[in-house]
Amino acid sequence: MELNGVADLPEVRPGDDIAALVADRVDLEPGDVLTVASTIVSKAEGRTADLEDYPVSGRAEEIAGRIESVAGEEKDPRFAQAVLEESAELLIDCPFLLAETRFGHIAPNAGIDRSNVPDHDILLLPRKPSESAERIRSGLAERGYDDVGVVVTDTCGRPFRHGQTGVAIGWAGLPASRDWRGEADRDGHELGVTVQSVIDELAAAANLVTGEGAGGTPAVVVRDWEFGDHEGSDELFRSVDDDLIRQALREWRVDA
Amino acid sequence: MELNGVADLPEVRPGDDIAALVADRVDLEPGDVLTVASTIVSKAEGRTADLEDYPVSGRAEEIAGRIESVAGEEKDPRFAQAVLEESAELLIDCPFLLAETRFGHIAPNAGIDRSNVPDHDILLLPRKPSESAERIRSGLAERGYDDVGVVVTDTCGRPFRHGQTGVAIGWAGLPASRDWRGEADRDGHELGVTVQSVIDELAAAANLVTGEGAGGTPAVVVRDWEFGDHEGSDELFRSVDDDLIRQALREWRVDA
Repeated sequence: MELNGVADLPEVRPGDDIAALVADRVDLEPGDVLTVASTIVSKAEGRTADLEDYPVSGRAEEIAGRIESVAGEEKDPRFAQAVLEESAELLIDCPFLLAETRFGHIAPNAGIDRSNVPDHDILLLPRKPSESAERIRSGLAERGYDDVGVVVTDTCGRPFRHGQTGVAIGWAGLPASRDWRGEADRDGHELGVTVQSVIDELAAAANLVTGEGAGGTPAVVVRDWEFGDHEGSDELFRSVDDDLIRQALREWRVDA
Repeated sequence: MELNGVADLPEVRPGDDIAALVADRVDLEPGDVLTVASTIVSKAEGRTADLEDYPVSGRAEEIAGRIESVAGEEKDPRFAQAVLEESAELLIDCPFLLAETRFGHIAPNAGIDRSNVPDHDILLLPRKPSESAERIRSGLAERGYDDVGVVVTDTCGRPFRHGQTGVAIGWAGLPASRDWRGEADRDGHELGVTVQSVIDELAAAANLVTGEGAGGTPAVVVRDWEFGDHEGSDELFRSVDDDLIRQALREWRVDA
């Protein structure tokens, strides 16, 4: 398996066609997977905003005030308002905001980014990242690059472990995961609960090449990797019923 | 960045020298990272066991009984006992066991594996995976392969997202994470909380090559990846103080 960053991508602007920007710079082969950082997908889709666009609700005032009193950290209530508007559910509201976005991804601040935004205050995640992935995939096909998988990525922290890793938030042209159930291990035993989230692993691998910051390469081509002959699934985000941690968080609140 | 599985590794037995097995099969270069699945590290270290080795305590009886009554799933109390003995803390005790191992990794059943074990019932994780990684690294150096990073990996599910991914549980010769704080993004803004868990990303990338099951290649060489000129950190596992999810779980219990 080989990963190469797409070199010399320009600063992406609203309306830019990411498939065209990539296709102008690399030759793709059938079976390749292209990972694209959500930052540039969001920029192309015009998902920048300014804090003054968010008139503050009572709930946002309360959240910002509580974070300030508990964490001693100044929180702009307009930013809290932006997070609320991007969220289907707040899982944690203090001392930081952990939110489920409207498309199911769970991330601090609903994935809203305050760096990486020229001329605006904040960058929202793409509205429907799998649709974004599908558009990029079609755009590549129109340029003669058939059968390229596309994964839209974010970087995100997680419970239990320090640090962030690349994760997938949208995908097209390949299943989200490989299902090994029913297959045998080296000793002939049937494998138990073994569903491998290949798109998250592709996103994590790509993030090693992408990097952050000034030298970042927000698109990466993965070559010589195959999904292989396995069952696939497109479930990525757990529902509350499926997730004891989400259930525990519903019954829990930081004491003020 | 390029990843290649180490082909033709034999079934690993207690006392086997993993560094020798790998060094006999591939040429390594300074700066390469070798990922090794914990299954073969555990086998080399003789970490297999049988359920009859675990006389059942009252706590294990209670756990197995409660899982049976809540989840309707038969749970061998000797297996629960094995999990208890491998654990520093149980974070969830019903309807499944989520445990912190004695070296800090949080995993269902303390990472105990019931597949992949010829001639025994269960396979425990290595006792101190970073020491295992260091031994493999030294063993490679003795064979002339200097400056190879080693990451011992497991596959593990996670909150919020379906499926498992490769994660690191031990490492040597490279820091666990890259600290981008204080560096600037493409627009000159300082990056916020940005610590990248590179060893987890390496483990995830390697798991795409490793696969599970009969065709698995439990060791992978990562080439042409650089940690680069960044601050590093060796913190991987969060403590309770550092982890709101762990705090929430301490106050929560599934209703029987």
